[in-house]
Amino acid sequence: MNIFITKNAGFCFGVKRAINIAFKAAAEDKNGTYTLGPIIHNPQVVQKLADEGVKEIEDINQGNIRSIIIRSHGVRPEVYSDIKTKGYRIIDATCPFVKNAQRHADILKKEGYQVIIIGDKEHPEVKSILGYAGSKAIVVGSVEALQSVKLRKKVGIVAQTTQHYGNVVSIVRECLKTVRELRVFNTICDSTHVRQEATKELAKKVDVMIVVGGRCSANTGRLAEIAREIGTETYHIEVPDELREEWFDGIENVGVTGGASTPDWAINAVIERIKEINKRR
Amino acid sequence: MNIFITKNAGFCFGVKRAINIAFKAAAEDKNGTYTLGPIIHNPQVVQKLADEGVKEIEDINQGNIRSIIIRSHGVRPEVYSDIKTKGYRIIDATCPFVKNAQRHADILKKEGYQVIIIGDKEHPEVKSILGYAGSKAIVVGSVEALQSVKLRKKVGIVAQTTQHYGNVVSIVRECLKTVRELRVFNTICDSTHVRQEATKELAKKVDVMIVVGGRCSANTGRLAEIAREIGTETYHIEVPDELREEWFDGIENVGVTGGASTPDWAINAVIERIKEINKRR
Repeated sequence: MNIFITKNAGFCFGVKRAINIAFKAAAEDKNGTYTLGPIIHNPQVVQKLADEGVKEIEDINQGNIRSIIIRSHGVRPEVYSDIKTKGYRIIDATCPFVKNAQRHADILKKEGYQVIIIGDKEHPEVKSILGYAGSKAIVVGSVEALQSVKLRKKVGIVAQTTQHYGNVVSIVRECLKTVRELRVFNTICDSTHVRQEATKELAKKVDVMIVVGGRCSANTGRLAEIAREIGTETYHIEVPDELREEWFDGIENVGVTGGASTPDWAINAVIERIKEINKRR
Repeated sequence: MNIFITKNAGFCFGVKRAINIAFKAAAEDKNGTYTLGPIIHNPQVVQKLADEGVKEIEDINQGNIRSIIIRSHGVRPEVYSDIKTKGYRIIDATCPFVKNAQRHADILKKEGYQVIIIGDKEHPEVKSILGYAGSKAIVVGSVEALQSVKLRKKVGIVAQTTQHYGNVVSIVRECLKTVRELRVFNTICDSTHVRQEATKELAKKVDVMIVVGGRCSANTGRLAEIAREIGTETYHIEVPDELREEWFDGIENVGVTGGASTPDWAINAVIERIKEINKRR
């Protein structure tokens, strides 16, 4: 049995950076450092970090806090001032690509544009960008959602970093029908798209796909969907114990991929277990 | 026989304004006022203006000049300074929509954008905008032409006022693939599109289409093409004398349209002649 791994499986740049920052903070100040919300949507990583003494809080009034880690999704600017007011240290692990989107939303607001954020309004990253875009900014997920928006003459656009290029182009096209000045900051980070394309290509070549990552991780779930859309038998698991020997009966080629919040060690553990299963065949 | 006229036939706003300015200038200073290039692409109008004492020059060193009329297409900024150096009075009949495109090209240049002008590089309007866009600006007519352009991270777009929305959107879409900041000034003037759509709709309803306007007028020629594409028998004429009685044999419904540089009196003269032909039938 051959095992293939997608080239871009696992942590994206921003997640890797945030995790490194969090573990470094844990080493420096055990039990006084907290993450505001789960550092990433992967319970195994959150647990590992908790084992090192960095726990999750939902509210900065909880716990015996000395330092607060801002996770990769970022937060609204008011949260920084609230933390400062409390006298806590801020450890900022906001993804630099998200920071970029926040900064450009702020520029557009200050320069008098009607700000449109293309993304999912329930996503913490979008909520953080919205904090910089001002109270009049609008979050739009699709061209259809744009229909109910009264566009002004001068419109500025930023996108959630995981947005699909095609969706951004569709919204830009619609805006150009009426807007006189349209300023688009292309704040998309390619890594989502690259990972999805790699998963799609691998799924075409193998008999079964194992997608490793948190069940609550939207981007990992999406990878499993993509592999299934190809028509390949696909299993989404968090840990090696979930693997079943019968999935590999009569199978020649296995593909393995992981989401942006899936650590390498989790992917490697799954691969090792598949190798063991193969040996027993 | 029924005669139908498209709602938007004839002079667009910018042409009407330029013609009014030119005739007003003729009344004020006969024989000392010149237009730099033909005021519009309609020989009958150019002749009428010449009869009033305003002739065309190609070069500001020709003629016994006191005043120079800048036609609706506009000119490069150097031309203004050259005229001023000569001590001539400038009568600026540049279309306000073209002025708008020039002004925005200038803003983009000054704010450090790589300026792209979407349009026909041979058209005088585009040449005038290019004068404001700086020496590094690029004129692009199509997505294909963009392939050979090395796009920078910060790109600004203005469009020739007669550009088609679909072409602008295609180029914007292509730019968004690599550009990080794209600032689009939608400088398209709707009148071209509105006139073309009205011609298309009328051509569908009638048995024969008469398109009135200068043979050198690109926009009038395009109206005739559009009517022919519908499959309607179409004739492009400049003056009523070109009409032939046999065109209307057995015809129930006639459509009449005119380009942006076709004066109302030219269209009306054609309609009167068609009515005479109808009476004789």
